[in-house]
Amino acid sequence: MNGCSRQNPAYRPTLSFLQSAKCFPMTLKTDEFYSKADELIAAGRFIDSKGWVPATSGNFSAQLSDGNIAITVSGRHKGHLEPDDIMLIDSQGCSLDGQKPSAETLLHTSLYQRYPQIQAVLHPHSINATLIARLFKDNIVLENYELLKALNGINTHETRISIPIFANDQNIARLATVVEDYLDQQGDIHAYVIAGHGFYTWGNSVNDALRHLEALEFLFDCEIRLHGVKPA
Amino acid sequence: MNGCSRQNPAYRPTLSFLQSAKCFPMTLKTDEFYSKADELIAAGRFIDSKGWVPATSGNFSAQLSDGNIAITVSGRHKGHLEPDDIMLIDSQGCSLDGQKPSAETLLHTSLYQRYPQIQAVLHPHSINATLIARLFKDNIVLENYELLKALNGINTHETRISIPIFANDQNIARLATVVEDYLDQQGDIHAYVIAGHGFYTWGNSVNDALRHLEALEFLFDCEIRLHGVKPA
Amino acid sequence: MNGCSRQNPAYRPTLSFLQSAKCFPMTLKTDEFYSKADELIAAGRFIDSKGWVPATSGNFSAQLSDGNIAITVSGRHKGHLEPDDIMLIDSQGCSLDGQKPSAETLLHTSLYQRYPQIQAVLHPHSINATLIARLFKDNIVLENYELLKALNGINTHETRISIPIFANDQNIARLATVVEDYLDQQGDIHAYVIAGHGFYTWGNSVNDALRHLEALEFLFDCEIRLHGVKPA
Amino acid sequence: MNGCSRQNPAYRPTLSFLQSAKCFPMTLKTDEFYSKADELIAAGRFIDSKGWVPATSGNFSAQLSDGNIAITVSGRHKGHLEPDDIMLIDSQGCSLDGQKPSAETLLHTSLYQRYPQIQAVLHPHSINATLIARLFKDNIVLENYELLKALNGINTHETRISIPIFANDQNIARLATVVEDYLDQQGDIHAYVIAGHGFYTWGNSVNDALRHLEALEFLFDCEIRLHGVKPA
Repeated sequence: MNGCSRQNPAYRPTLSFLQSAKCFPMTLKTDEFYSKADELIAAGRFIDSKGWVPATSGNFSAQLSDGNIAITVSGRHKGHLEPDDIMLIDSQGCSLDGQKPSAETLLHTSLYQRYPQIQAVLHPHSINATLIARLFKDNIVLENYELLKALNGINTHETRISIPIFANDQNIARLATVVEDYLDQQGDIHAYVIAGHGFYTWGNSVNDALRHLEALEFLFDCEIRLHGVKPA
Repeated sequence: MNGCSRQNPAYRPTLSFLQSAKCFPMTLKTDEFYSKADELIAAGRFIDSKGWVPATSGNFSAQLSDGNIAITVSGRHKGHLEPDDIMLIDSQGCSLDGQKPSAETLLHTSLYQRYPQIQAVLHPHSINATLIARLFKDNIVLENYELLKALNGINTHETRISIPIFANDQNIARLATVVEDYLDQQGDIHAYVIAGHGFYTWGNSVNDALRHLEALEFLFDCEIRLHGVKPA
Repeated sequence: MNGCSRQNPAYRPTLSFLQSAKCFPMTLKTDEFYSKADELIAAGRFIDSKGWVPATSGNFSAQLSDGNIAITVSGRHKGHLEPDDIMLIDSQGCSLDGQKPSAETLLHTSLYQRYPQIQAVLHPHSINATLIARLFKDNIVLENYELLKALNGINTHETRISIPIFANDQNIARLATVVEDYLDQQGDIHAYVIAGHGFYTWGNSVNDALRHLEALEFLFDCEIRLHGVKPA
Repeated sequence: MNGCSRQNPAYRPTLSFLQSAKCFPMTLKTDEFYSKADELIAAGRFIDSKGWVPATSGNFSAQLSDGNIAITVSGRHKGHLEPDDIMLIDSQGCSLDGQKPSAETLLHTSLYQRYPQIQAVLHPHSINATLIARLFKDNIVLENYELLKALNGINTHETRISIPIFANDQNIARLATVVEDYLDQQGDIHAYVIAGHGFYTWGNSVNDALRHLEALEFLFDCEIRLHGVKPA
């Protein structure tokens, strides 16, 4: 289902493949691409101002109307992005401009494939997201917070949601499969945490995803202050 | 007493009513409106820089000399307000420009009706305000802080004030009644907390209300650090 | 010794006296005054960016070469000072421009009188300074920190200094006497804390005092994190 | 091996020597010098915005292609550096422009001499770095953090690294020897902590060292939150 299908339909792109992939001649970047890039750049500045993407961690993407995806180039600091730090990939994760996308590109493309309404995916890498997996084992239950209403589809604090926590894995294809299996079995979620790493959230626009991100950082912070953190 | 009286004097405006209400032909926005809007925009930038209105939470208002009220439009991020994000309502909470005011408009209008000297109401939604209701049950007692003198009418740290905590409620008319009943019975207060949600404070100008807000965030922070927080 | 001597040499200025005092015809503000005012404005912006002067708390001063003093006007927010928010007083604390100086002016003037080399006095009002008096009773002992070297006259971390804590008092003349008595008996100090209120520090220039302030905020923060805070 | 060899090859420069040293006629500052200085100035603004170089603490350097070194002048605030606050020294730590380098210059030059690929050394002085030596005695073990991948040569969170902690010492030559002995015996490290003082880290460019610094601040913060801090 995933994979750079025009070249090798049988395989999902692996990290080493993505690093070398120049699938076909460069695709022209459109005004829409640069507009989305500007939104990701501004989101990065905000997220970095809070300390949630330290030391080139994190990655962001936004989908274009033709199904291609604007995504942060690997290894750039997300608080000081320039238009050249945003690259173009197709819906399978193939580079369309010769640059190397984030190692975690598959986690983005598999979300866009599953949820057609999603237009943006944001992955921060904050201290709260790193620590919360030490406090809770498999999932974080959030309830009775007014700020839950910042998540799409929630209109009262009298709501109980669960954010799953997945073990960290440098094999991104394997991690993407774990996420997809969870979604197949447990249904839709607002975000997921990767232990010791960060979380993924998404929305119908960059601003929508950013509101989710800001609300979840707030709620994780509340939970950590309420329950404390302890060594694993 | 509250309610969009020109249309239906018997009812306080409900959330669904407020959402659809276009009470009468659009009212012209005056220079005074835009001046107050600028004050609310600047207050929002400051409050957001502290992390006290995450993810479009919170709402702000300022009263005009004709009794109408400039108030934040529902769903906008309070750290990046533009003049178009501030709308005009009458003293009953009726939209005068066709935009949808905050769901919590009634909490603003009932304060202006009770206290004629009030010119601004601010509602932040901070982590401290969210957590403090886990630490104290019905009210927060603040005493022996020099910063109490930042609240109107207090001129010594040797003062003891009480900030009530109300249960959160999506039925804003019911919540407004709870607040009014408390004020009828207990007398005047400087602010009130809504559990898991945030707090309301007010003043004789936007700057006055902002000084109250900043002082209360400081004092809540002190109390949380002194007493710790525990799960409910 | 203190007091508005040209009018009533027998009395130190009281708060109510200072509020009404227009000792003599307005004194012209010099280029030196405006230069010092600019330094205090910049210091205020920095101190506020750290959250150390919330809600119009705190006050700052700098001495001019003629012995007069530039000091913040009472009730202004120290993070957004304009030149008009800095006023001129004489060495006794008398207003030279008809504006009302801070209630705590005497704490500034008595330091300038005792220590001729002092050119600036800064009084922040931070959470750390407010809480540290709950942790330690009479004084805070700081030792074995490299950052002690930021204080004038200290050149090794192997130094042990003591910062006294005084009870808060709205009677500033009485509080100033307590400070002076301590200095008479205990000798020179780098700063003093007023419980539940903040601290005073000073230096041979505004930058010197600001370095002391920043270092002490850091050291108080370290001490609070190491020892915790508990309710009084 | 260290020392201002053209003058006195037998001695490593002592602090008092460095303060007076004008080894030979002033060396012209090149475009490369000013370019590196700009990088250090920008790094300082970022590091200070996080509160990691309070009150003129910390120092930074970058090596030029001729082996000379651009380094911060002693006693300047690292958040507000100007080009004049960056000076030129040779590879032995000798001043080439008559200004006084940081007392800790030897810790920089000995790193450049040991590791030819290093182009920048950064020394922040944060609360986390100050406190972490109270929590761990001889070294800090970091493992199972995705952000370890921000350190050169690490490509999985399943890595265990050790950051040594050295006792603080005002005798910088002696401290430099302690560091060199450790490196001789224990092999290469990514950073070292000086107890009650701060840490040193380095990289193949200013940006590389800054990424290390930001990642280590994050990881120290995580460790302190997980394990708590206690008085020594």
